[in-house]
Amino acid sequence: MQLGMVGLGRMGGNIVRRLLRAGHHCVAFDRDPAPGAALAAEGATAVADLPAMVAALDAPRAIWVMLPAGDATEQALVTLAGLLSPGDVLIDGGNSFWKDGVRRGAMLRAKGLHFLDIGTSGGVWGLARGYSLMIGGEDAVVRRLDPIFAALVPGEAAAPPTPGFAGDPRAAQGYVHAGTNGAGHFTKMVHNGIEYGMMQAFAEGLDILKHADSKALPEDHRLSLNLGDVTEAWRRGSVVASWLLDLTAQALAQDPELESFSGHVSDSGEGRWTVQAAVETAVSAPVLSAALYARFASRDEDRFSGKVLSAQRKGFGGHLEPPKAAG
Amino acid sequence: MQLGMVGLGRMGGNIVRRLLRAGHHCVAFDRDPAPGAALAAEGATAVADLPAMVAALDAPRAIWVMLPAGDATEQALVTLAGLLSPGDVLIDGGNSFWKDGVRRGAMLRAKGLHFLDIGTSGGVWGLARGYSLMIGGEDAVVRRLDPIFAALVPGEAAAPPTPGFAGDPRAAQGYVHAGTNGAGHFTKMVHNGIEYGMMQAFAEGLDILKHADSKALPEDHRLSLNLGDVTEAWRRGSVVASWLLDLTAQALAQDPELESFSGHVSDSGEGRWTVQAAVETAVSAPVLSAALYARFASRDEDRFSGKVLSAQRKGFGGHLEPPKAAG
Amino acid sequence: MQLGMVGLGRMGGNIVRRLLRAGHHCVAFDRDPAPGAALAAEGATAVADLPAMVAALDAPRAIWVMLPAGDATEQALVTLAGLLSPGDVLIDGGNSFWKDGVRRGAMLRAKGLHFLDIGTSGGVWGLARGYSLMIGGEDAVVRRLDPIFAALVPGEAAAPPTPGFAGDPRAAQGYVHAGTNGAGHFTKMVHNGIEYGMMQAFAEGLDILKHADSKALPEDHRLSLNLGDVTEAWRRGSVVASWLLDLTAQALAQDPELESFSGHVSDSGEGRWTVQAAVETAVSAPVLSAALYARFASRDEDRFSGKVLSAQRKGFGGHLEPPKAAG
Amino acid sequence: MQLGMVGLGRMGGNIVRRLLRAGHHCVAFDRDPAPGAALAAEGATAVADLPAMVAALDAPRAIWVMLPAGDATEQALVTLAGLLSPGDVLIDGGNSFWKDGVRRGAMLRAKGLHFLDIGTSGGVWGLARGYSLMIGGEDAVVRRLDPIFAALVPGEAAAPPTPGFAGDPRAAQGYVHAGTNGAGHFTKMVHNGIEYGMMQAFAEGLDILKHADSKALPEDHRLSLNLGDVTEAWRRGSVVASWLLDLTAQALAQDPELESFSGHVSDSGEGRWTVQAAVETAVSAPVLSAALYARFASRDEDRFSGKVLSAQRKGFGGHLEPPKAAG
Repeated sequence: MQLGMVGLGRMGGNIVRRLLRAGHHCVAFDRDPAPGAALAAEGATAVADLPAMVAALDAPRAIWVMLPAGDATEQALVTLAGLLSPGDVLIDGGNSFWKDGVRRGAMLRAKGLHFLDIGTSGGVWGLARGYSLMIGGEDAVVRRLDPIFAALVPGEAAAPPTPGFAGDPRAAQGYVHAGTNGAGHFTKMVHNGIEYGMMQAFAEGLDILKHADSKALPEDHRLSLNLGDVTEAWRRGSVVASWLLDLTAQALAQDPELESFSGHVSDSGEGRWTVQAAVETAVSAPVLSAALYARFASRDEDRFSGKVLSAQRKGFGGHLEPPKAAG
Repeated sequence: MQLGMVGLGRMGGNIVRRLLRAGHHCVAFDRDPAPGAALAAEGATAVADLPAMVAALDAPRAIWVMLPAGDATEQALVTLAGLLSPGDVLIDGGNSFWKDGVRRGAMLRAKGLHFLDIGTSGGVWGLARGYSLMIGGEDAVVRRLDPIFAALVPGEAAAPPTPGFAGDPRAAQGYVHAGTNGAGHFTKMVHNGIEYGMMQAFAEGLDILKHADSKALPEDHRLSLNLGDVTEAWRRGSVVASWLLDLTAQALAQDPELESFSGHVSDSGEGRWTVQAAVETAVSAPVLSAALYARFASRDEDRFSGKVLSAQRKGFGGHLEPPKAAG
Repeated sequence: MQLGMVGLGRMGGNIVRRLLRAGHHCVAFDRDPAPGAALAAEGATAVADLPAMVAALDAPRAIWVMLPAGDATEQALVTLAGLLSPGDVLIDGGNSFWKDGVRRGAMLRAKGLHFLDIGTSGGVWGLARGYSLMIGGEDAVVRRLDPIFAALVPGEAAAPPTPGFAGDPRAAQGYVHAGTNGAGHFTKMVHNGIEYGMMQAFAEGLDILKHADSKALPEDHRLSLNLGDVTEAWRRGSVVASWLLDLTAQALAQDPELESFSGHVSDSGEGRWTVQAAVETAVSAPVLSAALYARFASRDEDRFSGKVLSAQRKGFGGHLEPPKAAG
Repeated sequence: MQLGMVGLGRMGGNIVRRLLRAGHHCVAFDRDPAPGAALAAEGATAVADLPAMVAALDAPRAIWVMLPAGDATEQALVTLAGLLSPGDVLIDGGNSFWKDGVRRGAMLRAKGLHFLDIGTSGGVWGLARGYSLMIGGEDAVVRRLDPIFAALVPGEAAAPPTPGFAGDPRAAQGYVHAGTNGAGHFTKMVHNGIEYGMMQAFAEGLDILKHADSKALPEDHRLSLNLGDVTEAWRRGSVVASWLLDLTAQALAQDPELESFSGHVSDSGEGRWTVQAAVETAVSAPVLSAALYARFASRDEDRFSGKVLSAQRKGFGGHLEPPKAAG
């Protein structure tokens, strides 16, 4: 099957690669010619601009845009909408805001085009392991592109079957047609929100393990724990077994004190949007929010809220904060 | 190797079973004679009381107590301490408070006995999958009982190797000698704290997915999502892949609305102790705490804090709460 | 000075009343003729529609819209914008979203009109105590209407002077020109966010006091506390002395168990918008969020997140939740 | 009336001073002779050791210990218990753990002595404003010492009467006999827990106001707010009016950017014990906990939990954290 790919970064490039290996034909474009040239050596057709991509594909076309969310994605979709013919499909596979998916679907339908919003999880491991796909859009369009999706996902053998599962067989392959436009990115957004919460659960737990030798404990209660061994042991048979635990054990195996990291943590749109969706629909989400706030606080250079607390403490109690507080 | 087991509930009974299948010899006791009789049929030696157990084992003995934390465990350990000989080993494999492990270790050492506190994860799946063990105590004693532990854990093949792992090879089998007495239950406590956080992350995320059809959203933004398909798809290739996700997908496959559950959630000691350990050692643990509080709130029948809020609202704004608020 | 008031509910009506008592002239309109008639008896000019209001005021006019945020406010502002003359001032005194204030300011400026967004705190007590006003808009316009604002606020005597205060003297009267359009409602939004946090702090603290007799405590540690006496005592000399504490003590004096409340708590836009503003600007706001989530959870009838937790617990441990858990 | 005071720090010294001014007779002791000498000049009897204090007081004696919680308080109480006669009263007015109050009460009762645990709020302002007292102990003993308590509290005029208040008239003076031993410090503990929550609510709200000029907002939405003016305005007529707000406005008046503070915030026992009491009695207390954790995080120098998150992010996505993240 044919697919056009716009944006050949780590994600877009590896999606093309995985499709090529499955025997699909990909037409590839990136502002930077280098990744297209590399993919051409692996069997893709590299093109120099979007009109050339449209010309290189047979109708009905399917073009996957894999660019940073926001302006870059919007511009590519708008440009392509002007070049495509009725019946063609545009895909946004980036980390876009789900409401943009709703809006873009309506905009493209008005032009006779189809739109799929696809949340894509898998990161740097997707090429080898396959990608988890969460898809929003019209059913017939999702079905038409099924060979593409089936080639991208890990496949049923990647996990033991779920006893009693009688849902959509595609889910057991690793992809879900979640609903109408917006549903793909909504589902991916929540996926990432959960990911934030799980990560923070591990981070807090390991922080407690690390501080088990705290001087705040009586001397005969202080414990010195080897986090690398603990996380490795948990990988087998424990309730917290997970891919995130695998990665944590791996990081601790390579850098037991994690000294190569500053402790400042970035966040991306999905974690924020998840909190906003919870607020919008009145769902209590304290864990997902706390996970996000921990990242904000990790980067809080001006510490203004702490200054307010100290100013109040000085005001009512004459407390002067020590220059550096004990742990 | 020989092992005595006191307490033949689901956990104790299955541990005996797994040891028998590995060729070990188990002497088994429970207040209720039925489970001992059943295990005798599978090869164990059932005894009628603790003195009989001590008599049935060769010195140096190893007796594993698998009883509810608190009084039951304390009494069994104290009684056995009075029956055993120097060099014998007592094991507390229950969900005990880690500081009790520190105290019991000192108490038993004073009598010439050895003590191991072992946190055991695996639940109803341990018999088939093996148990994850977190062990506190003296190194020589842990090594002496290695055949027992090696038979209980899932073994190296249960998970792919961690690249670069150069720690204790036992960790790669599924068990960790975490440190001195207390370290086993401390590590298990934090394991469960992390488990609470991960579970709540999934619970909140699925709650947001479920409310994607909320009337608070504009009509063209409402999404109807199939949680069973979504969780099944996430099991392959996504970042949140985990045993908890497997179990969640399984539950949704069997009961898509989870109608068989009331929404009231119990909590056990470890979740609470984890928060208390964080507070005691000044570690910020908002996610692990929020996860615990969500369980408290799920059972909060008198809703007194909500009443205080409504009383204040009425006081300053004359707000009368609607009898039942919109979602 | 003249002021038109659109919307004569509890807030709008009492603002008119307070202005009349200070000698200002008010032209009043409401869809429902009753409140206008009542205010006419107190000296206001009641009008039957918006054109009549515009006709009844001398240019440059000032019209204060005090309607529910959203459609009602938008329609009134748009209608009035079509009736007014360059130089006239429109005021939105309701609980509007601050970004609407930015947008409306630009829209009205394009028509030669002026716009003020005013956050108004004071509730049912404003008539007697005065209102706290947070104003966004052009400096000259705020100054022009100063007699109106000065009549509405509590005045300097309402609180002891702040030592060293050398800021805007209007702030010491009880109102602040916070900045350009949007700043008034932004400031009011955050005010309400803080209010949510303070309320929840009291709610949780009183809940802990109430549960000091919990059976989870050893019998000789159980305490029976009189919350009415405690809160009354705290009103004098303690660090938590506050108007919210006064109202809490008053509520407990009248209904010691707060039995007249269901425990379900509503929330309004500001609490949600505060969290969204925090997320948007990467400010860690765990307390303000937790306060909001506690309200969501108080109304969570389907308890789906709790069901997910119980389903997972059953999955890994065979735990069956008790029909009703202990406190 | 006579009172002995052990510990003449800021709190103990000013309590003596306030009692002297009310005509009571105080016998004062401190390890350091200087504060005793100063109080002697104001009318107190300074003594050189505890036996001298006991000798200087008429039976039945009342001795107030105002020392740091923990060892210092314990030693003083134990020493005094050995010197006193049946019927004498020992008071612990420090920030002691409430369970110590339960234990100490039982210990002293066994010797025929009486014990009061008194939580004292008021800080550096207590001398002028009076102290808020929360008292645990036997009713007859509390009544016997009523003249002392009545002299210490702010008195009824310090706040307007609560409509409908028909509780203990002492509460309207500013002190509460909260219950049996432990109840005084339990009530003070929760008071401080609430205080933490309220302070953090202000800290987060002001942090959001301060970041209203964030580059994360569209340029035409950025607001520059004067926090000194805003907090001053809120002091009159708003719902968040409180002593903490007064102190915040005062701090901002003197140091608009709060540059004299580092942003590292200390915490004391009560905030931690409040969370532990909530956990122990299964009360959901997310706000009080989040407030405590914000202080822990403000002092978190090793940022280990952040490093865990970054290590996981690198593991699944190849994300490298920027050296310093954007706000």
